[in-house]
Amino acid sequence: MITYSYEHFKNDLQPLSSLCKPFQPDTIVAVARGGMTLAHALAMSLDIRNLQSIRIESYDDTIQREAVTILGSCNLQTSTNVLIVDDIVDSGATLSALMPIFMGQYPHCHFKIATLFMKPTALIQPDFSLHEATDWIDFFWERDYLQSH
Amino acid sequence: MITYSYEHFKNDLQPLSSLCKPFQPDTIVAVARGGMTLAHALAMSLDIRNLQSIRIESYDDTIQREAVTILGSCNLQTSTNVLIVDDIVDSGATLSALMPIFMGQYPHCHFKIATLFMKPTALIQPDFSLHEATDWIDFFWERDYLQSH
Repeated sequence: MITYSYEHFKNDLQPLSSLCKPFQPDTIVAVARGGMTLAHALAMSLDIRNLQSIRIESYDDTIQREAVTILGSCNLQTSTNVLIVDDIVDSGATLSALMPIFMGQYPHCHFKIATLFMKPTALIQPDFSLHEATDWIDFFWERDYLQSH
Repeated sequence: MITYSYEHFKNDLQPLSSLCKPFQPDTIVAVARGGMTLAHALAMSLDIRNLQSIRIESYDDTIQREAVTILGSCNLQTSTNVLIVDDIVDSGATLSALMPIFMGQYPHCHFKIATLFMKPTALIQPDFSLHEATDWIDFFWERDYLQSH
């Protein structure tokens, strides 16, 4: 298990932000819940005021495939370059379901994906990412706030 | 100026989470950008999967009053107890504009507000809050991620 602390996160922000900057995003969409803290951080780092979020639930359906439901909506009518932000691309099922929907709803937008971690085996790869997830990642937001601590 | 570090934030999470818990929120709405990291943290601490966000812009209008525009929308159709989360209630203009709109759109929902900081002079007070803002707050998300650092 990889323990990913706030100090790691803070040190990762500049490298990830620098990767994203040439895309010149005007909008950030956080994939809730995992992408919320990173999306906030990138919005501050890149000075982007248009920060939104989308909620996705994935579950195993009756034939054991991973199914994805997108809950809620964004408003990207005035956006051009949209950065989708999540903590990790694991199986890639979430983002590979989300991207065609976004591209269909907002054909005038360019979309790029930024994550902290990625897996080479995922269905979809982030455009901007820092680390390969070689083990389970214990993100600080999954550990530091638990009632038992 | 009050420097509000990640360590402060981490230590504040349990007390704030405990204040919110009896309300039994099933949904958290982050007020972007400032409320995003706190909303993520509370969603993890309270084990709430329904995490959404709303974007608000406030500006001085031509007669120098503070005007507020709500951008984007939430989906609270299946929600009952909704916790609105922001970092600070300062003037209160943002939340005093937002609350009547939410209550009009979703009359079946109960709404409560949680923030880290509040000001006694604000137009609206949070239901759950920890500190009075006696000075300008320098939140870690406004400092730790800046390009110059």
